[in-house]
Amino acid sequence: MSTRNLLIVSTSTVHGKGYLAYCESSIQSFFKSIEEIIFIPYARPGGISHDEYTKVAKDKFAEFGIKVKGLHEFEDPKKAIEAAEGIFTGGGNTFVLLDQLQKQNIIPSIRKKVAEGLRYMGTSAGSNITGLTVNTTNDMPIVHPSSLEALALVPFNLNPHYLDPDPSSKHMGETRETRIKEFHAYNDQIVVGLREGSWLHVQGDQISLEGTLSARVFEKDKTPYELEPSDDFNFLLK
Amino acid sequence: MSTRNLLIVSTSTVHGKGYLAYCESSIQSFFKSIEEIIFIPYARPGGISHDEYTKVAKDKFAEFGIKVKGLHEFEDPKKAIEAAEGIFTGGGNTFVLLDQLQKQNIIPSIRKKVAEGLRYMGTSAGSNITGLTVNTTNDMPIVHPSSLEALALVPFNLNPHYLDPDPSSKHMGETRETRIKEFHAYNDQIVVGLREGSWLHVQGDQISLEGTLSARVFEKDKTPYELEPSDDFNFLLK
Repeated sequence: MSTRNLLIVSTSTVHGKGYLAYCESSIQSFFKSIEEIIFIPYARPGGISHDEYTKVAKDKFAEFGIKVKGLHEFEDPKKAIEAAEGIFTGGGNTFVLLDQLQKQNIIPSIRKKVAEGLRYMGTSAGSNITGLTVNTTNDMPIVHPSSLEALALVPFNLNPHYLDPDPSSKHMGETRETRIKEFHAYNDQIVVGLREGSWLHVQGDQISLEGTLSARVFEKDKTPYELEPSDDFNFLLK
Repeated sequence: MSTRNLLIVSTSTVHGKGYLAYCESSIQSFFKSIEEIIFIPYARPGGISHDEYTKVAKDKFAEFGIKVKGLHEFEDPKKAIEAAEGIFTGGGNTFVLLDQLQKQNIIPSIRKKVAEGLRYMGTSAGSNITGLTVNTTNDMPIVHPSSLEALALVPFNLNPHYLDPDPSSKHMGETRETRIKEFHAYNDQIVVGLREGSWLHVQGDQISLEGTLSARVFEKDKTPYELEPSDDFNFLLK
């Protein structure tokens, strides 16, 4: 039985609230009794530096009494992961994030530590990479990682910031649902569309949806469907 | 001096009009005196088959008196390109399109023929690939091409279906402008944001914006700016 413990958060910020404010009690209880975590700033939202981005996380986690150190601050990132009790991977560009993790060759270390119980929290791009692959990211492919295989901490794919089609829109770009349908022309795994304000909590073989919204589940050759926080999500881990 | 002749169209369809209807007089004059063109259906919008997609183009071009044959119908696609007078590459998923062109190893043939005067028209994904790379596509990376280098028929990048930020939106996903800013943290080339209803016409070393809308131009380390159809775009080809 796996001892994994994951918080897979759709977005760091919901409209009109501060950074991580809407889910802060869950974050606090998730990292309870941990004094220091590692922040992975590699997704660099808007192209900001690793230092600038780490400061954002540092300031917020200081409110919880948790110290934060950026992974880029360690001379040996692999050793840092091995020694960590908690990781938080922030959002930004999923391709940039995955490319950096691949170049540093730390994906196996993260997988191993998560299987042993290291607490892993991600938001947005940091959640995307918990899936089997990042083929269902919304991000622009501004760099080209050698592969789109991700951390595979869960046996499905994520689509954070999931967005329902806007019936009043005159824009002809594909809806999110059409994009995921195209994904299933080439790939088999389930995709969970996680709306802003939602997060998944995985503990071993148990998984639950938190927040007040439903999630949209996409299975190949099936009509997409909604699941509520009160529904059973454990089939996703089988 | 290059003899290239390109029609780089943002979208095949604008809201409320039929397929290619809003720009059909330009298409007709672009392919004037050509009896048959090759349609490249590889972008497979919504995952439809090559045959289904080619039929859509065939039916439309029949109205112009132009025969259409799908590239997938030829036993030797490279020879087919060599013998063609015109190509139309339809929209859909840019990654799927580029991956297929790479696997068939026909990119060099298209480049060579375009330099010799073959008329090339693209919509959406078919326009995206006329740029240096497809790093500025809006599409979901549902497959993983070996490289994101594109046809490089023009020395800049495209962002078709360009979308202005919606000030009333409560969604926290990145705006198009933010994504392109992130692109410029890792890449140098100019990006032209081409709104739905706009197209670029390239003839040798001349390029003009057609349609009624302005285009948004993104240069690294500069504030993005608007250019009108009456403005000079030739600097983009230098």
